[in-house]
Amino acid sequence: MNFYTIHDLTPGMSASIAKTVTEADIILFAGVSTDFNPAHIDEEYAKTTMFGGRIAHGMMSAGFISAVLGTRLPGPGTIYLSQTLKFKAPVRPGDTVTATVTVKEVNTAKNRVTLDTVCTVGGKVVVEGECVMMPPVRPA
Amino acid sequence: MNFYTIHDLTPGMSASIAKTVTEADIILFAGVSTDFNPAHIDEEYAKTTMFGGRIAHGMMSAGFISAVLGTRLPGPGTIYLSQTLKFKAPVRPGDTVTATVTVKEVNTAKNRVTLDTVCTVGGKVVVEGECVMMPPVRPA
Amino acid sequence: MNFYTIHDLTPGMSASIAKTVTEADIILFAGVSTDFNPAHIDEEYAKTTMFGGRIAHGMMSAGFISAVLGTRLPGPGTIYLSQTLKFKAPVRPGDTVTATVTVKEVNTAKNRVTLDTVCTVGGKVVVEGECVMMPPVRPA
Amino acid sequence: MNFYTIHDLTPGMSASIAKTVTEADIILFAGVSTDFNPAHIDEEYAKTTMFGGRIAHGMMSAGFISAVLGTRLPGPGTIYLSQTLKFKAPVRPGDTVTATVTVKEVNTAKNRVTLDTVCTVGGKVVVEGECVMMPPVRPA
Repeated sequence: MNFYTIHDLTPGMSASIAKTVTEADIILFAGVSTDFNPAHIDEEYAKTTMFGGRIAHGMMSAGFISAVLGTRLPGPGTIYLSQTLKFKAPVRPGDTVTATVTVKEVNTAKNRVTLDTVCTVGGKVVVEGECVMMPPVRPA
Repeated sequence: MNFYTIHDLTPGMSASIAKTVTEADIILFAGVSTDFNPAHIDEEYAKTTMFGGRIAHGMMSAGFISAVLGTRLPGPGTIYLSQTLKFKAPVRPGDTVTATVTVKEVNTAKNRVTLDTVCTVGGKVVVEGECVMMPPVRPA
Repeated sequence: MNFYTIHDLTPGMSASIAKTVTEADIILFAGVSTDFNPAHIDEEYAKTTMFGGRIAHGMMSAGFISAVLGTRLPGPGTIYLSQTLKFKAPVRPGDTVTATVTVKEVNTAKNRVTLDTVCTVGGKVVVEGECVMMPPVRPA
Repeated sequence: MNFYTIHDLTPGMSASIAKTVTEADIILFAGVSTDFNPAHIDEEYAKTTMFGGRIAHGMMSAGFISAVLGTRLPGPGTIYLSQTLKFKAPVRPGDTVTATVTVKEVNTAKNRVTLDTVCTVGGKVVVEGECVMMPPVRPA
């Protein structure tokens, strides 16, 4: 896996991953998180909600953002300092979520980088926010 | 499952869940999120990092927060609007994470509630932040 | 989580959970239980059976009963002593199973409670039986 | 897979499977069943219980019984009619559970077979009971 130190990073650099969310992902995420909100696992209940059917856990999309940050940009060795998340629209089983991170500010003195983070489905924003990372330091 | 409408909520109300994080959780979270950062799944690599061994995904702890919000307080029917997260310390396999949410501000006019959200391991804060939720509306 | 001691329990008290059974649940249950009966995992074979397609494991519905008992009524701290199960009808992928437990007899002297346990799909009974539990003892 | 019709079955016939229960099995079983009783997933809580640590879901052992019945004896094509279960002792992560079923009574007229069903760990009974099955009918 590649990684980027603070000296490699400039505003506008971007990376993405995409994943189709399946029922299996939802069951496993529920199992790991203990989040059995019926909106995620009970279709009969979910049909009666404003979403009209089961939706994925919002934090699953946050996990996709984390995946881009930790495996692509800045990549392995990065320390995750903080993240903000706004949940804008639901993700449903079968949706393909694209998570994209884009470098916004680079603070070389403090070894901190701020990135815009967004998840979309079919071009529509479902989650957006911003994170601060401490990129890896190149081995001497 | 119980749920709380905006009229049931007052500052200081609190709910928690606790879960021991296992290797299985980390593998499953990696599989669902595609976050295969070696810090989570490669013990040999992880031993060479500042953490000295594998750590859980930060977003797994965020998932525990989501679980309390969606299943306890405010509970089913809640709409998750936003969340901030500061990652303060690592979670390791075998750690028991307690996620606690506490009502901070209640805006009845807008049907919005702000909660403090924190995850701890052995009393030490590992993740902290704040969320804004739209609590469920009691059926007429 | 709430829990009920023997002194809190009276005949007629009831609790339920509901879950939509997905293909993912069937695969995962097969993986954990080693129950790879082709009726559960081989659609071509299953089409030739009296059920006309794959069905979920009966013990998955029993697991939903266990979930209500252990998390709602009587809740955490309960000791599961015995369970009877009659499998009345198949559960298919996509069915939403509602598991309901209802207090039948309370034996305070022996700290034992008997509950009726039933799983339904669209109002039709798929599994029914009875269990005996030792409810939690409130800490002194 | 082999299967036995009512004409092939005689009292005393027996079959077994064995499986080591891992933390992964417990997380997955929790995810499928929605059974997040802290006795199964919270080691800190579980240490304070009479079991002194996390235990597997009782219905997981029932699933092993179901696996033997559906895949070995009587095997594929069998209809599961009923099961009784007595939970005698806990199963812990790392325990190897052996599930054994033994033919007890054969009712050829009604095409019903009764089997003793037992799960053991290190020779100690953890679950025991009895089931009634309708064995497969040999294709003409």
